[in-house]
Amino acid sequence: MIYLTRKCEFSASHYYYNPALSEEQNRKLFGKCANRNGHGHNYTLEVTVRGGVDPVTGFLIDLKELKEIMNREVMDTLDHRHLNKEIAEFAGQNPTTENIAVYIWRRLEAKLAVARLHRVRLYESHDLFVDFYGEA
Amino acid sequence: MIYLTRKCEFSASHYYYNPALSEEQNRKLFGKCANRNGHGHNYTLEVTVRGGVDPVTGFLIDLKELKEIMNREVMDTLDHRHLNKEIAEFAGQNPTTENIAVYIWRRLEAKLAVARLHRVRLYESHDLFVDFYGEA
Amino acid sequence: MIYLTRKCEFSASHYYYNPALSEEQNRKLFGKCANRNGHGHNYTLEVTVRGGVDPVTGFLIDLKELKEIMNREVMDTLDHRHLNKEIAEFAGQNPTTENIAVYIWRRLEAKLAVARLHRVRLYESHDLFVDFYGEA
Amino acid sequence: MIYLTRKCEFSASHYYYNPALSEEQNRKLFGKCANRNGHGHNYTLEVTVRGGVDPVTGFLIDLKELKEIMNREVMDTLDHRHLNKEIAEFAGQNPTTENIAVYIWRRLEAKLAVARLHRVRLYESHDLFVDFYGEA
Amino acid sequence: MIYLTRKCEFSASHYYYNPALSEEQNRKLFGKCANRNGHGHNYTLEVTVRGGVDPVTGFLIDLKELKEIMNREVMDTLDHRHLNKEIAEFAGQNPTTENIAVYIWRRLEAKLAVARLHRVRLYESHDLFVDFYGEA
Amino acid sequence: MIYLTRKCEFSASHYYYNPALSEEQNRKLFGKCANRNGHGHNYTLEVTVRGGVDPVTGFLIDLKELKEIMNREVMDTLDHRHLNKEIAEFAGQNPTTENIAVYIWRRLEAKLAVARLHRVRLYESHDLFVDFYGEA
Repeated sequence: MIYLTRKCEFSASHYYYNPALSEEQNRKLFGKCANRNGHGHNYTLEVTVRGGVDPVTGFLIDLKELKEIMNREVMDTLDHRHLNKEIAEFAGQNPTTENIAVYIWRRLEAKLAVARLHRVRLYESHDLFVDFYGEA
Repeated sequence: MIYLTRKCEFSASHYYYNPALSEEQNRKLFGKCANRNGHGHNYTLEVTVRGGVDPVTGFLIDLKELKEIMNREVMDTLDHRHLNKEIAEFAGQNPTTENIAVYIWRRLEAKLAVARLHRVRLYESHDLFVDFYGEA
Repeated sequence: MIYLTRKCEFSASHYYYNPALSEEQNRKLFGKCANRNGHGHNYTLEVTVRGGVDPVTGFLIDLKELKEIMNREVMDTLDHRHLNKEIAEFAGQNPTTENIAVYIWRRLEAKLAVARLHRVRLYESHDLFVDFYGEA
Repeated sequence: MIYLTRKCEFSASHYYYNPALSEEQNRKLFGKCANRNGHGHNYTLEVTVRGGVDPVTGFLIDLKELKEIMNREVMDTLDHRHLNKEIAEFAGQNPTTENIAVYIWRRLEAKLAVARLHRVRLYESHDLFVDFYGEA
Repeated sequence: MIYLTRKCEFSASHYYYNPALSEEQNRKLFGKCANRNGHGHNYTLEVTVRGGVDPVTGFLIDLKELKEIMNREVMDTLDHRHLNKEIAEFAGQNPTTENIAVYIWRRLEAKLAVARLHRVRLYESHDLFVDFYGEA
Repeated sequence: MIYLTRKCEFSASHYYYNPALSEEQNRKLFGKCANRNGHGHNYTLEVTVRGGVDPVTGFLIDLKELKEIMNREVMDTLDHRHLNKEIAEFAGQNPTTENIAVYIWRRLEAKLAVARLHRVRLYESHDLFVDFYGEA
């Protein structure tokens, strides 16, 4: 059993706002992040898969295949997007780092065949990140 | 003569679009960056000042003073903003890394007293940055 | 269940010395670190908390609140201090990276309400760090 | 129970090729990595050990001892080597990051006395790494 | 006048050996690097160009164009290669970081049209790099 | 003409205090840094030398020789020291990052033979560094 992690980066824009709350409550909860013009981040994503090593190749997973899945499911969907305006899942919930990590987990998990998805780690900045292991 | 550099980070949103050009030309020149919903970045700024060392303190510049100038002129102005929509200078020109660096230079240069501004370095991502030395 | 990690940095001074041992034993065990003038480090701290995501905000924990707890319990206590001379817990035991991590765990755990403390990771330098999960 | 991690770096050369397969299959599976002139990497290794803290020293493990084990078992064996040509274990299996991590685990585990080996993390580049915990 | 820097990484293998010298002299001058099985590195390249900002786009240079030149002139030529065996220029001189930087300068300079090449910085590892400005 | 840079790290302790000033003035100028118990840092040093490339070796300078000079002049002198108490030059002036950089320049410049010292860059933390080029 071995764990392999691959990184990628994407840039996206977002804001935090809950329409069920008042302007004042939003401002108090979300501060500068409530500015609905949006602001943005360079997100760094680490995808960890786990499984056994194939004795023919010495690989846990074909890296080109993993890269293609990450490109298709994450980069093509999220890079250079405004998350609130362009991703349906974030019409009704804030695109926080927590929620984006869960969103990425769901997209990746369905596509991985050989290896199992183990962890999604998402950095919003160099000093803030979240981990999701698919736990309920 | 010594040079001192201090870093800070801010997050902002932007897009690239020139209204004097056609949709097709914009798409061709700016690709995914022309999406007017905007996308965002964590920018890292390095401000370098130069001057002589004060023998009383051993400092080129009071670091608290430099931090306050950077906070007031850069962080308060650009952090968590949509650059196209909220910064007047970027109503008529694209907020490219190049133009943001020049904009930051102008704001900082006017406020520095003891030390001279030497360089503004702005990272848009870990693999892309620009330097501006105030040269015409 | 999601895990969120926030980083901060502090600078402190320390030395390693056990008064129950001879000078020679101290020198042998601790090498240059036994110099009682002390030497120092920039420590990087990663605090990981875990819990469920609040559907109203999309947050595991209010980041401002977490930052305030880290500032009050870690930064105000340890930053710019000489650990042996100024922190009572290190009068009788060496302020090793191991012991500082346990010390930080105890201070943080008592103050966290919404989320549970999961891990304290403390870097003494870029190539040496310890993890403490509160395990006996 | 505490976990301590120490990093080191080594440079090595390798290629991926399975003589039981055709040239075409090798090229398809391994792409540019099948070039038998070899190519190389700066590997970053993180070795994590776990155990209790010695109350006399405040240490989990004597860091000089850990460094010597890592130097003898990893650096002296792998640094500035061509892995396929000079390491017997990689005559019959590809020196993939996965297989090198398992190889390092086996060498280190036999030599550690005070603390238990917990994890071997091996970076092939800054955006690709594997973890091995000794799990079958 | 502004300066823009773009990074990329490549992996290559090399050794240091001068056939005009004796085995012993080679061993003395080049140490472990004289092992003619070769060893390898992840090189990080920073290419800096300089020029004026185009008022229509806000760009110093079209980033896609710069990336294509770097891919064609550097990545396609050097990535996953054994430099001594596969690059003609290094048949008669050692592929040291110094010489590789000069080699990259020459390839890039001939292809850049809009902006001028200012500096080639090449990291052999995170703690060793060279800069070449095209100075004789 | 090529420039080569080598990094190393050292840990040291210091405080800022000018005995010609009152307690209150010291507190005002130096804040937490005036605490005479001292605090510490992991300093990162980048030493840049310049010169021509030797056609026999392909090197600007023998890296082992450069490393030995840096070890002898910087590491042996400053690592694990209390700069105010153990370095004569800092008895009468504050060991600020500015002054330490000048001190390192003077020690290195006298010892370099083949290549010329070009720049000393000293990081006090990841977001603060100074450069000294030997300019009066």
